[in-house]
Amino acid sequence: MSEFFTGISKIPFEGKASNNPMAFKYYNPDEVVGGKTMREQLKFALSWWHTMGGDGTDMFGVGTTNKKFGGTDPMDIAKRKVNAAFELMDKLSIDYFCFHDRDLAPEADNLKETNQRLDEITEYIAQMMQLNPDKKVLWGTANCFGNPRYMHGAGTAPNADVFAFAAAQIKKAIEITVKLGGKGYVFWGGREGYETLLNTNMGLELDNMARLLHMAVDYARSIGFTGDFYIEPKPKEPTKHQYDFDTATVIGFLRKYNLDKDFKMNIEANHATLAQHTFQHELRVARENGFFGSIDANQGDTLLGWDTDQFPTNTYDAALCMYEVLKAGGFTNGGLNFDSKARRGSFEMEDIFHSYIAGMDTFALGLKIAQKMIDDGRIDQFVADRYASWNTGIGADIISGKATMADLEAYALSKGDVTASLKSGRQELLESILNNIMFNL
Amino acid sequence: MSEFFTGISKIPFEGKASNNPMAFKYYNPDEVVGGKTMREQLKFALSWWHTMGGDGTDMFGVGTTNKKFGGTDPMDIAKRKVNAAFELMDKLSIDYFCFHDRDLAPEADNLKETNQRLDEITEYIAQMMQLNPDKKVLWGTANCFGNPRYMHGAGTAPNADVFAFAAAQIKKAIEITVKLGGKGYVFWGGREGYETLLNTNMGLELDNMARLLHMAVDYARSIGFTGDFYIEPKPKEPTKHQYDFDTATVIGFLRKYNLDKDFKMNIEANHATLAQHTFQHELRVARENGFFGSIDANQGDTLLGWDTDQFPTNTYDAALCMYEVLKAGGFTNGGLNFDSKARRGSFEMEDIFHSYIAGMDTFALGLKIAQKMIDDGRIDQFVADRYASWNTGIGADIISGKATMADLEAYALSKGDVTASLKSGRQELLESILNNIMFNL
Amino acid sequence: MSEFFTGISKIPFEGKASNNPMAFKYYNPDEVVGGKTMREQLKFALSWWHTMGGDGTDMFGVGTTNKKFGGTDPMDIAKRKVNAAFELMDKLSIDYFCFHDRDLAPEADNLKETNQRLDEITEYIAQMMQLNPDKKVLWGTANCFGNPRYMHGAGTAPNADVFAFAAAQIKKAIEITVKLGGKGYVFWGGREGYETLLNTNMGLELDNMARLLHMAVDYARSIGFTGDFYIEPKPKEPTKHQYDFDTATVIGFLRKYNLDKDFKMNIEANHATLAQHTFQHELRVARENGFFGSIDANQGDTLLGWDTDQFPTNTYDAALCMYEVLKAGGFTNGGLNFDSKARRGSFEMEDIFHSYIAGMDTFALGLKIAQKMIDDGRIDQFVADRYASWNTGIGADIISGKATMADLEAYALSKGDVTASLKSGRQELLESILNNIMFNL
Amino acid sequence: MSEFFTGISKIPFEGKASNNPMAFKYYNPDEVVGGKTMREQLKFALSWWHTMGGDGTDMFGVGTTNKKFGGTDPMDIAKRKVNAAFELMDKLSIDYFCFHDRDLAPEADNLKETNQRLDEITEYIAQMMQLNPDKKVLWGTANCFGNPRYMHGAGTAPNADVFAFAAAQIKKAIEITVKLGGKGYVFWGGREGYETLLNTNMGLELDNMARLLHMAVDYARSIGFTGDFYIEPKPKEPTKHQYDFDTATVIGFLRKYNLDKDFKMNIEANHATLAQHTFQHELRVARENGFFGSIDANQGDTLLGWDTDQFPTNTYDAALCMYEVLKAGGFTNGGLNFDSKARRGSFEMEDIFHSYIAGMDTFALGLKIAQKMIDDGRIDQFVADRYASWNTGIGADIISGKATMADLEAYALSKGDVTASLKSGRQELLESILNNIMFNL
Repeated sequence: MSEFFTGISKIPFEGKASNNPMAFKYYNPDEVVGGKTMREQLKFALSWWHTMGGDGTDMFGVGTTNKKFGGTDPMDIAKRKVNAAFELMDKLSIDYFCFHDRDLAPEADNLKETNQRLDEITEYIAQMMQLNPDKKVLWGTANCFGNPRYMHGAGTAPNADVFAFAAAQIKKAIEITVKLGGKGYVFWGGREGYETLLNTNMGLELDNMARLLHMAVDYARSIGFTGDFYIEPKPKEPTKHQYDFDTATVIGFLRKYNLDKDFKMNIEANHATLAQHTFQHELRVARENGFFGSIDANQGDTLLGWDTDQFPTNTYDAALCMYEVLKAGGFTNGGLNFDSKARRGSFEMEDIFHSYIAGMDTFALGLKIAQKMIDDGRIDQFVADRYASWNTGIGADIISGKATMADLEAYALSKGDVTASLKSGRQELLESILNNIMFNL
Repeated sequence: MSEFFTGISKIPFEGKASNNPMAFKYYNPDEVVGGKTMREQLKFALSWWHTMGGDGTDMFGVGTTNKKFGGTDPMDIAKRKVNAAFELMDKLSIDYFCFHDRDLAPEADNLKETNQRLDEITEYIAQMMQLNPDKKVLWGTANCFGNPRYMHGAGTAPNADVFAFAAAQIKKAIEITVKLGGKGYVFWGGREGYETLLNTNMGLELDNMARLLHMAVDYARSIGFTGDFYIEPKPKEPTKHQYDFDTATVIGFLRKYNLDKDFKMNIEANHATLAQHTFQHELRVARENGFFGSIDANQGDTLLGWDTDQFPTNTYDAALCMYEVLKAGGFTNGGLNFDSKARRGSFEMEDIFHSYIAGMDTFALGLKIAQKMIDDGRIDQFVADRYASWNTGIGADIISGKATMADLEAYALSKGDVTASLKSGRQELLESILNNIMFNL
Repeated sequence: MSEFFTGISKIPFEGKASNNPMAFKYYNPDEVVGGKTMREQLKFALSWWHTMGGDGTDMFGVGTTNKKFGGTDPMDIAKRKVNAAFELMDKLSIDYFCFHDRDLAPEADNLKETNQRLDEITEYIAQMMQLNPDKKVLWGTANCFGNPRYMHGAGTAPNADVFAFAAAQIKKAIEITVKLGGKGYVFWGGREGYETLLNTNMGLELDNMARLLHMAVDYARSIGFTGDFYIEPKPKEPTKHQYDFDTATVIGFLRKYNLDKDFKMNIEANHATLAQHTFQHELRVARENGFFGSIDANQGDTLLGWDTDQFPTNTYDAALCMYEVLKAGGFTNGGLNFDSKARRGSFEMEDIFHSYIAGMDTFALGLKIAQKMIDDGRIDQFVADRYASWNTGIGADIISGKATMADLEAYALSKGDVTASLKSGRQELLESILNNIMFNL
Repeated sequence: MSEFFTGISKIPFEGKASNNPMAFKYYNPDEVVGGKTMREQLKFALSWWHTMGGDGTDMFGVGTTNKKFGGTDPMDIAKRKVNAAFELMDKLSIDYFCFHDRDLAPEADNLKETNQRLDEITEYIAQMMQLNPDKKVLWGTANCFGNPRYMHGAGTAPNADVFAFAAAQIKKAIEITVKLGGKGYVFWGGREGYETLLNTNMGLELDNMARLLHMAVDYARSIGFTGDFYIEPKPKEPTKHQYDFDTATVIGFLRKYNLDKDFKMNIEANHATLAQHTFQHELRVARENGFFGSIDANQGDTLLGWDTDQFPTNTYDAALCMYEVLKAGGFTNGGLNFDSKARRGSFEMEDIFHSYIAGMDTFALGLKIAQKMIDDGRIDQFVADRYASWNTGIGADIISGKATMADLEAYALSKGDVTASLKSGRQELLESILNNIMFNL
């Protein structure tokens, strides 16, 4: 098999003193942090769409890089992408990959032929996986947003034929995910929302979406899928409003429609900030409600209003993300998928490596900092102390349900003002401690 | 009783041809629109805090107007405010008012005396209501955010004593609301959120908030309150993150904690836009889920990032708001409370009148346009046609639960591509029709 | 010549009582408003890129509509677009059009052939213009952002060869603009900015941009161009930061580099709001500084963070825009170019008509309201009164330069506090008057 | 003199391994970085308003901390603040302070008495400075926004009497700044903007502002002020639009009115982000235009829309700030003023120390990283290489003004496409290098 990324060898770990751009400075796959190796803790995944397909196109210009890998017809290109992807995963020490159905093979003239293409390419991938048994599918999904047929939605389409087509497509995407051993299946509602309420029956659309998810779960379980379903929240873009606005909204939806047993969250950093939340906030909401699942690792630019899907290089965000992951007990079926793309101006093939190295080193730092936050204990202890009044006395009575409103009034009347019992929230001290932990690794 | 707003008579309706700044151009209280009079449809309420208390203070400057109404000591001022408020309601043809406990009378040295002040002032108000039987309480609430004791939250305080104090305060606020015949009680979580996750136990805080709401419901029902409880969503400000982020989040919370039977939404226009939603969106979400309740009528500036609480003068927003209200069957216990304040530079007493006239005329226009949207029928018919495929065939099978994923795949395979069956969403035409309706009243 | 938009006749004016979607309700081209006909006051222009080229593509999906107009090879398609554009302009009573060079004919294999294509297509357009003498070019421009060669900028490219290529392209674009009788030439700096300061020499880039503009002016004047150059501000997108951030920034740039004699502004509504300004603000800044030029008429969604380029349907914005236009003395070389696109879901050919009708009717309403604001006089009189103190006494002394700081101190010491002389800003009353004018046309 | 912050000694430097919350981990005043000591490079200043006056008040609640320092009447409190401030500066190893006139002593009943208060308190401060000769004024300013008289602006007031009063106030503020040896005088236009264009004469207001600045410069120079004047940009808040929107806008204003010789910028991090710019961007714009002056060191929350004035703890921002400072040659008259306030919930006196330690350690880290970025050289070398084509050939001809548009066309025609000469912008690599530098100190 020919090499695609010639001149670039397997990326070594050289440590923080290294100046070699083609080396990891912090990501040392077999180094143990928090009782597991980094590769186990981080479970990095390559995103097929951005990495094998993204060419730098934006709304104001055509692509700047060629992702045909020397191929000509669609299936030839598709197979070369498989080879290139495995070469990348090998050279970058990445164990997982994620895909949309249409990333693997583009649509043909009709659904039957499109599905045959998927059979062919997944057969090819399966062979590659046999040869490379440490490479696994993190999750699969169906692209129900790119084709014009989905312009008004897929599961929330105003037109029942479109819904039917989407269901058929999702059925196949689930099948290939199971075939390739994927432990996750994602729904990202790219067109599940509205452009204007003037033309929208929101109630019907959401009911239908729930119908689709129930069908998908039933079908997947019937063919042996034991992994997790994920919903990936995003507040807007491409639509004016996406129904899966943020984690809290999605959890409410899942509970309303009795879907909460099968679904968890796939949380993306950039989607969080578009919803005006921090990345950590979204993870915390998921964790506290038992919906922590998987992560789309990237970063946005909070001074911009669209999804930039940048490779993550902010160590604070990575550290606070990994803190939530560790507190949630680490990943089970999920992992860290780089839903990230090199900038349009980072158009050379070697930029793929620079980008992944940047992102992986950032999360390696994040993991080490997060573990150190826990080991250090100052922050966790502060929080425990801050809520200590709930463990005894009136606090315990409130939590046990013993105290009534009248009891509390009597307590308050006898207590006098309570301001004297307040303690500072110490935000600045805690941020200082975080810096101290980060810059004393 | 002395007159406070001398030189300003009861505001007459003079119609759109009038140039008189002290006349309504569109709000004609007894004009019938949609089968009810405007005053019944709109149920305008005066907000005690902004109107009787707001003095133009902002974060960069002290107040520009004096709201003591000639009073000296706290209770003297408080009573003068009652008189002034009733004069305002009379002159402006407003039937309802809304209050926080602390708007009516400021805190005294301890809770007991504070509650005595509330007894005294509500006695006084009750007398005024007897003299003015058309003046009613729309809803009451407790200010659990202004006092330093609530700096870290009230129902979500890290300190159990603070929770107890809040419960005591809310108990009293419910009592006076019931005493004054209020049909609504609002929770706005001004400090129920966090500044930094580094010091926050989010799960405990939300569980406690639910505990408080359950207690409040139980107590209120026990003393005969038959009205609605409302939660008023807001995403942030004063806190970095408020738990009641938006309507979808709150509905999810209410369902999780089995509070959905007693609570509805009090939706504020400016809070909607701070959450990146349109006002109509929030109302639609509430309506579709059966949580439509009451409205805080104001407007924000979407190019600014804080709550400006401006008097509503945008007719589009008012029209689309009233469209949702009419579609929800109109107000029952709720109404349109002007949670709005005259700009800091609109500091003269007559600006109160200009402001309310502006807001009331805008909503009168909004009501007329909304009713005309429904009577006109073009928009509703378009929506009905757009979703017609769900009434028969495969659409009906999906909705009835008859169709499985395999059925849909078979259908899609046989159908060929579905793009040809798509129809334009016609957003521009619909917006054009809306303008046509608005500018042809 | 064959008809492209069959079944749609020339759009008649039918007045506001009409329900005909294919009629103007407010735009009556020959109706006189403010001393000129509507067509003279509004000078509507068709945007070649959106209307003849835009196919509904967005970052998450391929095009939903076909804009080949039945053509096959590039120049065949290009000519059919000319025919279709003239048919549209005729049926919509639009007198002007605007174009990028690459909208008219796509790039060929090299610059020479590309320029030959431009010669061929502009010859064809010139013939069409002879047959339709009321159809004119409002302005032309060069697309120096779509091709990968401009990925890092054109006039601000880090690479001198790219700058040279851009200059060559702009030279040709100026030539064809002059050839077609255009009275305007626009610079929109789509890639003139940066993605990260880590790799950017901002000072050199801006100096170079000024060099390019000087060259362009010198060249254009040398071939007889007597019209206006325009810069079109935009704060971001596609780049993280665009140098032409907003009107104030651009005016500062033009003055710094002595370009202020030749350049005016082309202000776009959606770019204004992306910069956190109102549309009116940008126009006011331009007007007050003598840089008012032309307008890109569209609207954004202030709850979204990217350029949506929606057809303008908000009557408030259109009215306040036209108020500034009228105050500036109306358009000279400029006009109202619809830099607007039908939504991706408005994919049918008739949506082009619905969109333009929506936009043109909105601006017709805007013009009528703006003229009525001036005729009504209440708002202008309020402003004149508000600043009256500058006409006499200490105000006049300050303006004439007679008063020194010591004089003012002496004045202030003798005057006592000045708060008593303040008057309300009356924002709510003024907004109320605006509504009164709008809804009493 | 009594000690105010009992129990807290002078904060020692203990290095990054220390767990002592009351010690510096990174700020070592006498450590040499980049040829100067940290205290010379960083020139930290205490902000009198936040530190001596800020009590945690926000728009939804009264103060949480008492800043009377045991005083009773206004001048007693004022003097105690002086003592407390000098104790703080001593214990925190801070050499500078900044003030508004009204921070030092509150207004009295009239201007004359107010000025006498200023004389009295500055006399007291001058004595303290004699006793503590290393404590200096970084800059002074006048608070022309808090008093109701400035509700519509000061230098841009619609009323000439208000302008006169502002001029008188500024005259005195300049005098006391000079008296105390200040090397800077700041204008922050808190109310210099508008709430609505409907009532605003923008042109007159800006002309008047320029008149005021000219008067201020003339007067200050006449009494021997040789320092710098600064304008502090902010886009909004409290006003809807502030005229000093951002650095580019202000520079344009200064050049238009010939004020560019006397004025530089005082750039605040949080104001930068409110204008949708990075902190580094604002500094870069100032530096490239020769307007770099002083810095208000704080940080905002880019997910919130108002000025939070948080103590800076983000090391990335501090590093990129200090990189610009070092590239500008370091501070001359300016410095790093902590325009920062402890959170409302950080209400204890010791939080002042935690906050300053957090901010100072962050900037110490920032300085070390910035110096290392320069010493390391990888980033600067990349930039130099990226623009190398401007040093020779066609690039040099463009810069020298030798090349015409026709020359460039000829060059481009002969050159063929230039895409092949493009190089990647390498954003991800550069961000990776930055992390490598940060986490390998």
